[in-house]
Amino acid sequence: MIAEFLGTFVVILLGCGSVAVSVVGLPGSGRQVEAFGAANWLIISWGWGFAVAFGVYIAGGISGAHLNPAVTLAFAVRRTLSWRKVAPYWAAQLLGAFVGAALVYAAYRWAIDAFNVKAGTAREQSLNTFSIFATFPAEFFGDSWWGPLLDQIVGTAVLLMGVCALIDIKNLAPKANLGPFLIGLVVFAIGLTFGTNAGYAINPARDFGPRLFTFFEGWGSLSLPGNFKWFSNYWWIPIVGPLIGGVLGSQAYDRLIPPVIRARSAPSEAGRGDLA
Amino acid sequence: MIAEFLGTFVVILLGCGSVAVSVVGLPGSGRQVEAFGAANWLIISWGWGFAVAFGVYIAGGISGAHLNPAVTLAFAVRRTLSWRKVAPYWAAQLLGAFVGAALVYAAYRWAIDAFNVKAGTAREQSLNTFSIFATFPAEFFGDSWWGPLLDQIVGTAVLLMGVCALIDIKNLAPKANLGPFLIGLVVFAIGLTFGTNAGYAINPARDFGPRLFTFFEGWGSLSLPGNFKWFSNYWWIPIVGPLIGGVLGSQAYDRLIPPVIRARSAPSEAGRGDLA
Amino acid sequence: MIAEFLGTFVVILLGCGSVAVSVVGLPGSGRQVEAFGAANWLIISWGWGFAVAFGVYIAGGISGAHLNPAVTLAFAVRRTLSWRKVAPYWAAQLLGAFVGAALVYAAYRWAIDAFNVKAGTAREQSLNTFSIFATFPAEFFGDSWWGPLLDQIVGTAVLLMGVCALIDIKNLAPKANLGPFLIGLVVFAIGLTFGTNAGYAINPARDFGPRLFTFFEGWGSLSLPGNFKWFSNYWWIPIVGPLIGGVLGSQAYDRLIPPVIRARSAPSEAGRGDLA
Amino acid sequence: MIAEFLGTFVVILLGCGSVAVSVVGLPGSGRQVEAFGAANWLIISWGWGFAVAFGVYIAGGISGAHLNPAVTLAFAVRRTLSWRKVAPYWAAQLLGAFVGAALVYAAYRWAIDAFNVKAGTAREQSLNTFSIFATFPAEFFGDSWWGPLLDQIVGTAVLLMGVCALIDIKNLAPKANLGPFLIGLVVFAIGLTFGTNAGYAINPARDFGPRLFTFFEGWGSLSLPGNFKWFSNYWWIPIVGPLIGGVLGSQAYDRLIPPVIRARSAPSEAGRGDLA
Repeated sequence: MIAEFLGTFVVILLGCGSVAVSVVGLPGSGRQVEAFGAANWLIISWGWGFAVAFGVYIAGGISGAHLNPAVTLAFAVRRTLSWRKVAPYWAAQLLGAFVGAALVYAAYRWAIDAFNVKAGTAREQSLNTFSIFATFPAEFFGDSWWGPLLDQIVGTAVLLMGVCALIDIKNLAPKANLGPFLIGLVVFAIGLTFGTNAGYAINPARDFGPRLFTFFEGWGSLSLPGNFKWFSNYWWIPIVGPLIGGVLGSQAYDRLIPPVIRARSAPSEAGRGDLA
Repeated sequence: MIAEFLGTFVVILLGCGSVAVSVVGLPGSGRQVEAFGAANWLIISWGWGFAVAFGVYIAGGISGAHLNPAVTLAFAVRRTLSWRKVAPYWAAQLLGAFVGAALVYAAYRWAIDAFNVKAGTAREQSLNTFSIFATFPAEFFGDSWWGPLLDQIVGTAVLLMGVCALIDIKNLAPKANLGPFLIGLVVFAIGLTFGTNAGYAINPARDFGPRLFTFFEGWGSLSLPGNFKWFSNYWWIPIVGPLIGGVLGSQAYDRLIPPVIRARSAPSEAGRGDLA
Repeated sequence: MIAEFLGTFVVILLGCGSVAVSVVGLPGSGRQVEAFGAANWLIISWGWGFAVAFGVYIAGGISGAHLNPAVTLAFAVRRTLSWRKVAPYWAAQLLGAFVGAALVYAAYRWAIDAFNVKAGTAREQSLNTFSIFATFPAEFFGDSWWGPLLDQIVGTAVLLMGVCALIDIKNLAPKANLGPFLIGLVVFAIGLTFGTNAGYAINPARDFGPRLFTFFEGWGSLSLPGNFKWFSNYWWIPIVGPLIGGVLGSQAYDRLIPPVIRARSAPSEAGRGDLA
Repeated sequence: MIAEFLGTFVVILLGCGSVAVSVVGLPGSGRQVEAFGAANWLIISWGWGFAVAFGVYIAGGISGAHLNPAVTLAFAVRRTLSWRKVAPYWAAQLLGAFVGAALVYAAYRWAIDAFNVKAGTAREQSLNTFSIFATFPAEFFGDSWWGPLLDQIVGTAVLLMGVCALIDIKNLAPKANLGPFLIGLVVFAIGLTFGTNAGYAINPARDFGPRLFTFFEGWGSLSLPGNFKWFSNYWWIPIVGPLIGGVLGSQAYDRLIPPVIRARSAPSEAGRGDLA
């Protein structure tokens, strides 16, 4: 539990930190720059990617480092984790995320306030500073719940397919303890490829923990702040979507790949020739 | 076959997803940004690079993870793959690419439509949204077929030289199952160095599968859409070019490097001193 | 001592070099670009990250490559380093940083002078060129010393948690001598996530060595130059903050993670299943 | 010799290709973008970095993959290479670089001509397109030869210190055949930190081979083209500077680090504790 708490804490500390750098840090330390331009998107994607990598390096030797309720659920469904552990893991992850968000706020509150003063918006009207902590769907979804939900399902399914492959020692799981590094790169890749529809939460704790924090710290709502309420009650989508997507992705991997590997005692000729 | 299908599916899902982020995602989630500026190009290059890396991690233990008809052909020519397997591999790769493109469309159709509405162009006139799926040559080639064909030959030859070196255990093939990671970085490097002439398909399935999908989904043509028809019937070049380039690259490697390595029973003094 | 000197020298040579490229190099070699835009921030973050990685590769086999007084102090507190070695390590690190800054200046003085001429500012008024060497807090902190101090504490605590995890062979420490590579990536990640509040010194030698150099070379003050004196006597914060943060981070790791690992003779079921 | 030829060919093919993407590729495939902005600089630095990495993966098992006359000279001086091999290695490297530049030109000549037509400059007046192949000093150096020479010495010294550390199995040389990957990252880091003063040739063959090619292909001079002749006869600096810097860097490493490692039969307590 301690490991899941500390690992998720580090994930949120670095991950939300990278959004803070993009949204309020770089504009505050220099001239105004765009919050979500392509180079900022690289900062955010690298930030979340290595946030997860180092969260796993810190927690991995103890708990396996799920750091994500969707991973925990998927592993319970595939029976590599006892169902009894699911609820305590979830609680530890959510608590770690909440405390991580609080420390990000403690370090960035000067920058956040300066940004809002400059923009002339009150905190509870500031979608930009809200986005440091919680995710929201792009405006083009209108109030469609299916679009962002599908986005979360697809993103988390890719995450779990990647994780399942990278820890499958009968497949090509990296050795030398480089699995966490490559899992971080999966998260980086998802950010670059499925990040802009709805902020790629792909992790219920990553979104709901910081979202709760914003509720207590003046952004005033669990949904979008201020006038940006094109979507009300968004908060359940980055919880339900990842839980569904994680199970789908891990089951897709488990049903398609390991049976074929088991059917052969050794990698095929072709396989050995290619990547031996 | 299942592995080739699933691996190519993942390649297209992440790869085309990264173009969607650049073209319609970032502009839709913030203010307008350039579709193919230098920072966007990094997103696209990282996206395709790790798309291939994780496609190989998923499929590699079974099929060797060609995920690319040009690789399959080159390996058949160098006799590390049975010729009987070529056609089924190609079919699985093409199907995986088609389905991957369909899922990218499912997740990005709101963004695509919002982009076209904002730009005031109908879908069948939109080169930008077409480019999420299929490649096209830069306008400066005019209707020269030799320029883009050479580009595809060179790019794919580099890919196969890299792949052949990275799986050659008598050379410096990475161990600890890190081959797929480095093969992904080869694709990343090709994007940064030979990506802008014609979109670096360097993979017949990667281009033709999504191109077929656009044909059925309203872009209306297998060549460039709308008024951008400076090149008619482009579709065959990213099929033929990679097939030629792949064979050239792998044969160049095979004829220049392994014979010298075989001629020495052990790496040379210099070799051992340098990178032992 | 020689190893700590040479390693820290390389860290500063490459690290400050990357800031020089962003601040005076790219503007001087082309048209004017922003000094601290998002893409420049990637250059600076990658630069410092790999500066540390290669500093460790050069010095690591001898001294363990702290290259940072905060690491040295933290390791003395956790008793993996003799207290007698602390002062000489600190001296070697500071000297290495000073000499590294001198060589950066030698290579970039044409670029620095050209930048100042173009901007029409005297050297002692130039915050941009001062920032090549020493760090300073963002203007929004006003003269609050607690904000930047907290920032330094958090950043260095993350660094030490990461380092402690990455060298803990009972946890998931990378093998194959890839620890220095991943430690460099921790520094990269901190730059992207906690870099913009106060320049992420997270290393007393990294900041004070080059700061001393600027004092002798015409920037004229140990604090901010010229009219930018919104914060007087800043120099002690990037010394004290990292020393506190390093001890906090390493103690947090040591008290939370290794006791649990020791309590189990082998990694848990879950742990093995996930990342074996 | 064949390996040095092929490896250097690949280095130039990808390296100069990445500059071509930045200078003429991205502007030609979209709207005008800056040739040497910060995001372009990342493309160029990643491009040259992995160009070297994959050049070494291809050639490394045979010749040790110097791919750089400065490396060859430094290794002869430190006696890990026979002096008799120096001249043939140099010839193979230079030839590989020339042929690599020719293939870059073949693939990019449409883009180069389109760029020059758009800019309204004749080829022999075009510094931008010249810079795809050869390096030149920033204008602020005036006709000082000492500035760029020092820059080349420092850059190549860092390269050789890094290479010597990364292949020193008594230090922390990466295992699992990941040395070439990390050597590529050294080149990437040098680009980000010492790349903008004079284009970081840090390799006589990398600069002189393509420079010779431009001489024959219409840029008309071995020095800067057209009206940009602020520096005449620059060509010798990226030859002499790297040769000096390479010897200095490798000797600095050899004299400071291995003697201390030899003086201890095993890594020190601290060393083992840190990065074991």
